[in-house]
Amino acid sequence: MHSSDTSKPKRAAGDKAAARGPKQRLVDQHRGNSELVEQEEQRKDLGFGTRINESVSRLINKDGTFNVNRRNEGFWNRINIYHRLITIPWIKFLGLVLTFYLSSNVVFATLYSLLGYENLSGIENVTPDTPIGRFMGAFFFSSQTLTTVGYGHISPVGYWTSGLAAIESMFGLLLFALATGLLYGRFSRPVAHIRFSRNAVFAPYLDINGWMFRIINERGNQLIDVQVEVSLSRLETKADGSSYRRYYGLKLERTKVNFFPANWTLVHPITDDSPLYNCTAEQLADSDAEFLILLRGVEDTFNQTVHCRYSYRYNEVRWGEKFKPMFSGSMDGEGTVTVDLNQLDETEPVSLN
Amino acid sequence: MHSSDTSKPKRAAGDKAAARGPKQRLVDQHRGNSELVEQEEQRKDLGFGTRINESVSRLINKDGTFNVNRRNEGFWNRINIYHRLITIPWIKFLGLVLTFYLSSNVVFATLYSLLGYENLSGIENVTPDTPIGRFMGAFFFSSQTLTTVGYGHISPVGYWTSGLAAIESMFGLLLFALATGLLYGRFSRPVAHIRFSRNAVFAPYLDINGWMFRIINERGNQLIDVQVEVSLSRLETKADGSSYRRYYGLKLERTKVNFFPANWTLVHPITDDSPLYNCTAEQLADSDAEFLILLRGVEDTFNQTVHCRYSYRYNEVRWGEKFKPMFSGSMDGEGTVTVDLNQLDETEPVSLN
Amino acid sequence: MHSSDTSKPKRAAGDKAAARGPKQRLVDQHRGNSELVEQEEQRKDLGFGTRINESVSRLINKDGTFNVNRRNEGFWNRINIYHRLITIPWIKFLGLVLTFYLSSNVVFATLYSLLGYENLSGIENVTPDTPIGRFMGAFFFSSQTLTTVGYGHISPVGYWTSGLAAIESMFGLLLFALATGLLYGRFSRPVAHIRFSRNAVFAPYLDINGWMFRIINERGNQLIDVQVEVSLSRLETKADGSSYRRYYGLKLERTKVNFFPANWTLVHPITDDSPLYNCTAEQLADSDAEFLILLRGVEDTFNQTVHCRYSYRYNEVRWGEKFKPMFSGSMDGEGTVTVDLNQLDETEPVSLN
Amino acid sequence: MHSSDTSKPKRAAGDKAAARGPKQRLVDQHRGNSELVEQEEQRKDLGFGTRINESVSRLINKDGTFNVNRRNEGFWNRINIYHRLITIPWIKFLGLVLTFYLSSNVVFATLYSLLGYENLSGIENVTPDTPIGRFMGAFFFSSQTLTTVGYGHISPVGYWTSGLAAIESMFGLLLFALATGLLYGRFSRPVAHIRFSRNAVFAPYLDINGWMFRIINERGNQLIDVQVEVSLSRLETKADGSSYRRYYGLKLERTKVNFFPANWTLVHPITDDSPLYNCTAEQLADSDAEFLILLRGVEDTFNQTVHCRYSYRYNEVRWGEKFKPMFSGSMDGEGTVTVDLNQLDETEPVSLN
Repeated sequence: MHSSDTSKPKRAAGDKAAARGPKQRLVDQHRGNSELVEQEEQRKDLGFGTRINESVSRLINKDGTFNVNRRNEGFWNRINIYHRLITIPWIKFLGLVLTFYLSSNVVFATLYSLLGYENLSGIENVTPDTPIGRFMGAFFFSSQTLTTVGYGHISPVGYWTSGLAAIESMFGLLLFALATGLLYGRFSRPVAHIRFSRNAVFAPYLDINGWMFRIINERGNQLIDVQVEVSLSRLETKADGSSYRRYYGLKLERTKVNFFPANWTLVHPITDDSPLYNCTAEQLADSDAEFLILLRGVEDTFNQTVHCRYSYRYNEVRWGEKFKPMFSGSMDGEGTVTVDLNQLDETEPVSLN
Repeated sequence: MHSSDTSKPKRAAGDKAAARGPKQRLVDQHRGNSELVEQEEQRKDLGFGTRINESVSRLINKDGTFNVNRRNEGFWNRINIYHRLITIPWIKFLGLVLTFYLSSNVVFATLYSLLGYENLSGIENVTPDTPIGRFMGAFFFSSQTLTTVGYGHISPVGYWTSGLAAIESMFGLLLFALATGLLYGRFSRPVAHIRFSRNAVFAPYLDINGWMFRIINERGNQLIDVQVEVSLSRLETKADGSSYRRYYGLKLERTKVNFFPANWTLVHPITDDSPLYNCTAEQLADSDAEFLILLRGVEDTFNQTVHCRYSYRYNEVRWGEKFKPMFSGSMDGEGTVTVDLNQLDETEPVSLN
Repeated sequence: MHSSDTSKPKRAAGDKAAARGPKQRLVDQHRGNSELVEQEEQRKDLGFGTRINESVSRLINKDGTFNVNRRNEGFWNRINIYHRLITIPWIKFLGLVLTFYLSSNVVFATLYSLLGYENLSGIENVTPDTPIGRFMGAFFFSSQTLTTVGYGHISPVGYWTSGLAAIESMFGLLLFALATGLLYGRFSRPVAHIRFSRNAVFAPYLDINGWMFRIINERGNQLIDVQVEVSLSRLETKADGSSYRRYYGLKLERTKVNFFPANWTLVHPITDDSPLYNCTAEQLADSDAEFLILLRGVEDTFNQTVHCRYSYRYNEVRWGEKFKPMFSGSMDGEGTVTVDLNQLDETEPVSLN
Repeated sequence: MHSSDTSKPKRAAGDKAAARGPKQRLVDQHRGNSELVEQEEQRKDLGFGTRINESVSRLINKDGTFNVNRRNEGFWNRINIYHRLITIPWIKFLGLVLTFYLSSNVVFATLYSLLGYENLSGIENVTPDTPIGRFMGAFFFSSQTLTTVGYGHISPVGYWTSGLAAIESMFGLLLFALATGLLYGRFSRPVAHIRFSRNAVFAPYLDINGWMFRIINERGNQLIDVQVEVSLSRLETKADGSSYRRYYGLKLERTKVNFFPANWTLVHPITDDSPLYNCTAEQLADSDAEFLILLRGVEDTFNQTVHCRYSYRYNEVRWGEKFKPMFSGSMDGEGTVTVDLNQLDETEPVSLN
């Protein structure tokens, strides 16, 4: 619900409305906002809207997804098989592949058994002549057909069994084609492996203070043209005492780097036009503050754009701490700059300006 | 035909042309348009042109395609096999694959039969020694070759049959390669699953009115950096009484959201510089009005840009209704925002400003 | 060689240089060009440079490639196998695949024959016991191994032949993998199927004239966000009588359309600041003029950006002709706009302003 | 560590701080930098930071990677198998594939031997009845299963061996799927094959001098929309005698070409606002100067964006040399422009302005 107040009841217009054209009526002194200011505020809400006026657990989860429930989503839309098969962990993916392979073979083995084991020539040489043995023979024949390995020591005889084997081998090829696409999709999918420092900090910056966090690229591949946007979301109180969620863009010392070879400390300098100016830890907590971070970059191997979201809630921000250096200059004597990734979260107390 | 009037006959220039350079002649008072204004108008037509000066059923179909007939399109250009195989529904696609598999096997079985069943060693053990039985045996051998399952209980003998089997197995591999590419293409193709509210509405907005519609992301995957452009297309009458189709860009309260976790109500505020200012439902209908919508976003799984088109015609716009809320705040007590997707189309009467 | 004159010999500086700083010396009155003008001129050359000071056959070929010879290009760089396999015509591609398949089998059959036909068990049942028959048997065995069809009626015996078969089947798998990638690459490669009108024309435009050409999208798939840039390249004579190639960007009535459902006539209005102002057909020919066109768009199925280049040389431009309409409005009574693609090149005489 | 000085100790503020708001305190006269200037300087550092204040061997290696050591990088992050398999040379890649194939077969052959050779029916016809012979038989059976060639002259018997074969054939299919993806990824990966001249030069440019280098596209495929950014990194000394690394963007005569059919000489004119103004070779060496180059373009076959990094250190820059022409105009009489790629590195002495 991004548009604020689309259903506001008709205002008691009084004498003022008579003297104003519709354009002017947008600039409503009672609201104390020009249209442009209103739009500017809107622009910073990132798409959450102002109606989330109670404390929420958080807007952006730690894995970058949004903390939004979707009720009555259609079953197939919710499932979105391909999307899920691409994003689930590898161990789960391989488990699913194995499960699907086994159950497909069970289904086809059952069908072959219904068509009669006598139509699987050679089955008697492979497994014992017991119900389980025959079924397992059909199972193995099915697996040899599905994977197109087709040894032929068991072979189909007669119209129906041969026909079913013809169908199964085509089915196997399509499955294989699918697996190929999924494996390629999983590998080539662009993902930003950015690690954010566990906490953000309020630390001295030049001769004022700054709100800071630190990031590294977890992977050895290069990220280039990295851009970061930070917004502050917090509850504020209107003149009539009702609360609403307001969003501020936080100006950063620097919003883009061409290369990202090491670590990057992002700093929002708390100047007197910052929404954090004179803000205390208690006020942050009371206003249910959350810092929303959006990062974009280009992954260098495939030159794909990658996105990454993160957020720090008020209780993940430390006051009066600064980050310890990760960057040890060229201390190895070979003129190579060295970065210690383990130091990412390390902070030490410091007195604020 | 985007350029307006490229073939206008030579004007009776008279005394004015004598005193003006060619640059000035572009600024033609009779037309009442400066060159720049002309260009600006052009820019909004989205590519349809001004010559569509009669009522049309609609410019953009409900599925986002254009309502334009292309006559004398070349056969192969019209077909564009790959494009079609990627975009047809799954059920049709799988039907086509099965049909192609069966008919390929029929063709190859016929060829094997022409080369002589005696060159398919072992065929007698698989199917009965009847014309149909032999043909089915060749059919099964063909399917085993095409899928490279190759049991070997039927096997080719002699130069010609062996050679044909060698060709068929390579043909099978290429088909399989093709199927792999098609399946991957179908799955990985970026599509925006945006659902638009069934109707657009004229509803109060702040203390004026607005033209509004509402969208949701049907899928669970994330859409980010979503931008929307809306144009109004309607017939207007020139001074000489001829009608032409004119296009207006409609200013939106907000044209972009960074995230699109829930629903988004897009609002065109009807200020006094809006082409909808003081417009009535009858005027909308008389002018064959259509609201053209172009949406762009980035699909987050593969970071691909997706596009989506939609349009509302005059009879799909409701006057004096507003959208019911879809967004129930954090009412579940767990601090999670909940959206009810079923509410997308729900409106209720409201009196306009 | 885009930088003009990087090796200009030291000027006899005289008294002027003494009074000027290096920045000012760039603004050289003898050249009659400020630095910025120089850069602006450079910007329009599209990358060809000003040294091409003789008549050339053309800068951009009809297929969009550049008419530039690259001498001493490395063999592997010139070949660029993948690029070529993706872009050659389908018939050539399939011919290459077949040729490669046959010759691979010949090579492996030769290797099997060197290891001894007696190690191919069952070969005697397939082909006659003659040198050619045995070789063909090895050839068929090779094809069954390469495609992994593996009937098994011929099977390898002994270390060396079994080992070679193991290598060949892996080689076959890799070939197949390659073919899959190539087929997918060929199909999914983004190509703009733009057809340009055979000729560009000088026709009346408003009450001046314009240089125009017309394009259609040959394919049924949608192109969106289509942008066009046009440059004029022609030989000009310096004050010292030497000729050089100069490039001008030509302002278009309109440079972008959101949608491209039908045809688009691009118009460069010949105002008095156009390089074509007062230009005659003879001057165009004498100056070896060529109109260079660069088109970009987004192909809607895969949302890929496509590029397309074209050029019109002076002898492909017609004076005093205009394009016949292709757009027949909604004349079919069903309210659908119809475009006749065959009309693309049709022009008719018209008297210029 | 891009933010300069995030942990600067609290300044003895004195009387000045009392009279200034926090915003003004950012503009610190002692530093001689406005906030904006500071940010501008930051913007040019490309992501390396100012702390690299000793001589380093180089910032950007010749292959475009960054000369940065990453300590304590996680094992799996460092490995990033897919990224490595895509970027290693072809010979290594094929070697790895072969090694993996052989060792997989050894592993499975061992497993089959543990399950008993008697369960591999037909093995006695393929290899001698010795321990090594039996193992090789199992090895060949494994290879026929892994590649799904499955001749069937050796075939699995019994539950365990049949089951293992069923697993192996599925494993083989997944490996094959993987190889397909890797091969496609290797081929379709967008790479800019830009060759940079071995040396950059200081040469006359117009009537001043310029710092120049030259590039060609090594491949026959087209690169379009090529953009180049050049930065100068060098050590400078603060007022307090400490040294820090400073970064300057170098203005180029031209930063973009639409097409890149031949060679391109990039020129930074040394005007009096250039950081190289009045700079000598000794000063370049003393300040550990490095010219950092970032190139972007669009590869025309697949319309993918490609990036490329390069750097010249002070000892790779030649003073008073200019590049020899590579571009021989249309000297072949056929009106085709010819470029000799071998001339890329050729320079000749010239006296500087």
